[in-house]
Amino acid sequence: MRRRMVTDSVLPPRIPPMLWTEFFIPTLKEVPSDAVVPSHQLMLRAGLIRQVAAGSYSYLPLGFRVLQKVVAIVREEMNRAGAIELNMPAMQPIEWWEETGRVAAMGPTLVRLVDQAWRRGTVLGPTHEEVITEIARAYLTSYKQLPVNLYQIQTKFRDEQRPKSGVLRTREFLMKDAYSFHVDKASLDEGYQKMYDAYCCIFSRCGLPYIACEAESGPIGGDASHEFMVVTDAGEDYIARAEDGSYAANLERAAMAPLSDAACDRLEPLKEVHTPGVTSIEAVSKFLGCRPQDMIKTILYARSAGLERSAGISPASGTAGILPAPGAAGFQPASTTAVAVLVRGDHEVNESKLRRLLGGAALELADPDLIRRTTNAEVGFAGPVGLNAQLVIDQAVTVMHNAVTGANKTEYHLTGVNPTRDFALDGSNVIVGDVRSAAPGDRSASGSPLVFEKCIEVGHVFKLGTKYSAAMGASFLDEHGKSHPMIMGCYGIGINRIMAAAIEAGHDENGIIWPISIAPFTVLIAALDTREEQVMSVARKLHDALTAAGLDVLLDDRDARPGFKFKDADLIGIPIRITVGKKGLAEGVLELKERRSPDVQKLSPDAIMPAVQGLVGG
Amino acid sequence: MRRRMVTDSVLPPRIPPMLWTEFFIPTLKEVPSDAVVPSHQLMLRAGLIRQVAAGSYSYLPLGFRVLQKVVAIVREEMNRAGAIELNMPAMQPIEWWEETGRVAAMGPTLVRLVDQAWRRGTVLGPTHEEVITEIARAYLTSYKQLPVNLYQIQTKFRDEQRPKSGVLRTREFLMKDAYSFHVDKASLDEGYQKMYDAYCCIFSRCGLPYIACEAESGPIGGDASHEFMVVTDAGEDYIARAEDGSYAANLERAAMAPLSDAACDRLEPLKEVHTPGVTSIEAVSKFLGCRPQDMIKTILYARSAGLERSAGISPASGTAGILPAPGAAGFQPASTTAVAVLVRGDHEVNESKLRRLLGGAALELADPDLIRRTTNAEVGFAGPVGLNAQLVIDQAVTVMHNAVTGANKTEYHLTGVNPTRDFALDGSNVIVGDVRSAAPGDRSASGSPLVFEKCIEVGHVFKLGTKYSAAMGASFLDEHGKSHPMIMGCYGIGINRIMAAAIEAGHDENGIIWPISIAPFTVLIAALDTREEQVMSVARKLHDALTAAGLDVLLDDRDARPGFKFKDADLIGIPIRITVGKKGLAEGVLELKERRSPDVQKLSPDAIMPAVQGLVGG
Repeated sequence: MRRRMVTDSVLPPRIPPMLWTEFFIPTLKEVPSDAVVPSHQLMLRAGLIRQVAAGSYSYLPLGFRVLQKVVAIVREEMNRAGAIELNMPAMQPIEWWEETGRVAAMGPTLVRLVDQAWRRGTVLGPTHEEVITEIARAYLTSYKQLPVNLYQIQTKFRDEQRPKSGVLRTREFLMKDAYSFHVDKASLDEGYQKMYDAYCCIFSRCGLPYIACEAESGPIGGDASHEFMVVTDAGEDYIARAEDGSYAANLERAAMAPLSDAACDRLEPLKEVHTPGVTSIEAVSKFLGCRPQDMIKTILYARSAGLERSAGISPASGTAGILPAPGAAGFQPASTTAVAVLVRGDHEVNESKLRRLLGGAALELADPDLIRRTTNAEVGFAGPVGLNAQLVIDQAVTVMHNAVTGANKTEYHLTGVNPTRDFALDGSNVIVGDVRSAAPGDRSASGSPLVFEKCIEVGHVFKLGTKYSAAMGASFLDEHGKSHPMIMGCYGIGINRIMAAAIEAGHDENGIIWPISIAPFTVLIAALDTREEQVMSVARKLHDALTAAGLDVLLDDRDARPGFKFKDADLIGIPIRITVGKKGLAEGVLELKERRSPDVQKLSPDAIMPAVQGLVGG
Repeated sequence: MRRRMVTDSVLPPRIPPMLWTEFFIPTLKEVPSDAVVPSHQLMLRAGLIRQVAAGSYSYLPLGFRVLQKVVAIVREEMNRAGAIELNMPAMQPIEWWEETGRVAAMGPTLVRLVDQAWRRGTVLGPTHEEVITEIARAYLTSYKQLPVNLYQIQTKFRDEQRPKSGVLRTREFLMKDAYSFHVDKASLDEGYQKMYDAYCCIFSRCGLPYIACEAESGPIGGDASHEFMVVTDAGEDYIARAEDGSYAANLERAAMAPLSDAACDRLEPLKEVHTPGVTSIEAVSKFLGCRPQDMIKTILYARSAGLERSAGISPASGTAGILPAPGAAGFQPASTTAVAVLVRGDHEVNESKLRRLLGGAALELADPDLIRRTTNAEVGFAGPVGLNAQLVIDQAVTVMHNAVTGANKTEYHLTGVNPTRDFALDGSNVIVGDVRSAAPGDRSASGSPLVFEKCIEVGHVFKLGTKYSAAMGASFLDEHGKSHPMIMGCYGIGINRIMAAAIEAGHDENGIIWPISIAPFTVLIAALDTREEQVMSVARKLHDALTAAGLDVLLDDRDARPGFKFKDADLIGIPIRITVGKKGLAEGVLELKERRSPDVQKLSPDAIMPAVQGLVGG
């Protein structure tokens, strides 16, 4: 059997030669002003996409070739990992979503068909847990059939409120979603690890500088969830990473070393000061001449009784994520009680951590009425001293001294506030824990400084547990004939996002710099002096020879100036450019240039093929 | 370069061996009673599909492999024909459909998103003329860029009122749709022929016994449209075919030789007879003792003024077709006049032909009120004699003698009716032509008897002309700088239908008989006595050798009785079965069997590979 080259074409042959003049590459000089992030701008300029509606794009031929190459890599690695491909439809019965409680959980993100009778029962799948679980319920009945991992590469629909950043956040997108079914947790762990490893292979092969990091996994299914992130300013997610590389996590989850108690000479007395009309951290610190980190911020939440089970912790922002939150829910407080959360003035409450600390409680910000009832003051003057409410105190607050906080009295604050002395750090109504997001200055558990980066989520793996199998009755009989719900995992990859992330990670002021593995073409032959018969003959022969060697080759046969052609070549970012020109041929040379480097090699026609194969690892 | 084998796997490798026990083939013993056609029953029994909702199916792994193979063949031939692949989203702005007048034309078949604000402007594409025309309008501006043919293989949504026959008529399906753009009719003709030829290659390679036949093309874009049909009782379309193979056409379009005037001894006198309560052809013929072919059927239509342009002739039934009717419309008569259509009592009016004859008129059956006003009689007694209405007379009526027809008088018919003598065959208010469907006994223009067959439409090619480019302003500048709308063609293939049609054309009482080219696997190795080490070792080696040779191989390693395994093998229909058993190995032989033949060859292990390669054309 012939050995596959790294770059062996995964696309079917196009028997006519691949000529620029016969292909469709509508490069643009100008892009709409609403294209802000580089990948969006470059995808438009290089003629990879065209917007059809907000959040829905056509992939023009060059862009489609990139998608196909990404798909081929994903498929190969999924198959190598033993997963089995199938295809499920977008249209699904809403009843199944009701069985799993996700009609409410998905909220308006779920695209429903309405109008005619049958449509009212139909949704367009934003993901396929329900459909695959129904398949498992129908066909997987014995432990002998497990484990199994079924996947598809299929179009998803989500009602994004604000589609943005080109193909990074859209209403219709291509996703690889895999679902695994297991008899026990050990088997799930093994299957999860296989997917984790396959994901590492996939993102490496796609040439992405990715980071695998801990993510919120939600209250269901337990102890593991990882996101695969590509660091770039165009991203909408944040990760915290230890400088020494020992730790990385989504900011929603990132843990940090506890702050230690700073030495304090003297505990000042508690003092009430008049702060008329001054309520924000910034305003109070300015008014009183203290720093934000000297203040205790008191945020009141409403906690509703009931719904504790179905309300979930969102693993990644519910809508931007590759997979939707397994149990994200709109909170609907029935009877509510106030929870006062204390964090340092320069820190932010982390609601994911807060909900996890409170056992998945349904929380939302208190409304002004609840604040007034709880503090006996107008909004903006809440503080822990003498407050009659459940207190949740962030660890960083416990080591503060002589702090400033609200006085629970309209237009008044307190100074000289000291934990323990002025409000209790223990007791039945007090919880101390980590309820804030990591911030500059924090360190990881191992003591390494944490750095913060914006990134794009390109993949997400979850241990789902039995949420779906229990809800839909997908059970198997074990070797003793006893029935159990199957243990599930699910694993998503955003195909279109890989394309955008690769551009974010690989571009310069002139255009895209594709990784070889997912470039729409591997080699671009720029024929200068296209009216010269010899030039075109050499270019065509080279095109044919490289194509026969299994490479994807595009021949720029346009009758245009060299500078114009080189500009387009840089814009569309083909990794290897070979220039065939009259002058070079007179000297007996062709020019070889990599897109990522400014160097130009002059080579004899015979030396070109080995040189190209050297570059592509053939 | 290595030569590609006919059956070279188009699927990515699955590095773990492909074992039945690790794959997912949920064969069924029983099928739901609503599965009526063989392909639907067999797709369920063989574990190829699972219904998700009415008209929406999951393709289980075995079924998905077939789809992938069909897609690979389609892609290869489209690329070979110089077409360029892209991908357009399902979600499209309804404004574009308003530009082309197709919101009304598609009627309820168009799946609209409603409910939230942005969705009201969105449809799910049943086809993509509007989207591709917008792309052409944006990027194709010069004659130098033409011709171009852009295609995709993408999921379509249509609101079928009655999904049926498994995957033959669904609300969500995979379609290859191509659109070509040209400067003139000659270029369109050339592009159309290329697609026609590519379609022949595609259906041949898929192993389908297809017929290319003339189809209705609608009033727009002119003179050519062809359907690619697979003859089977499961189909919903009808074709008329000349026995000598010289002609084939959709029944909506099929032309036949004119009937000749039979000798007639004596023209009887016109006579009014009392026929109380007798109105149907059957009842009248029984009552008067004449044959249906002795009667003239008079059907009244309402013709509305206006709408003449937008009302179209449906090329293939609007919803069952691969491509929707370019201009199918609900008729909305504003001011109507009556048109009386005369056909022989045993013939049927062909509304497609009728509309074409009337220049694309908007017609619908007259309501009782219009009938009464026109005939001065109750419904059921219309006839041509003395009728004050536009007459459209089928050719077969012109050669009748002594016929029976309605008297335009309640409860009366006329006998002894003779054309020319009793009603005019010419004049300003009379049109004579072919307005009936071909029927048993008819002959083709060449004189060969016509036969009629039910069939499945798997492909359709259209010359669209300028309908979409004119409506959406997609124009190009010619060499003189003058602007013209582009001339378009469009070309559809139903991927899922190819799969079903292949089963309809290839099955027996035991299961499916796949063509090698689209079989989910090419070779099935049935290992009997799986607990015998030697059996499994030989089977595994054979699996690996055949896989290395580029074949798709499945190893049935289930610990089950031979009869059980053979039954499943026949059901899923893998073309080549190799049996490895303890008894055979003791004799030094393996068994080779083709699914389509009862013969079993006993071969030495060394002889197996050449024999298999002989069968697959390697």
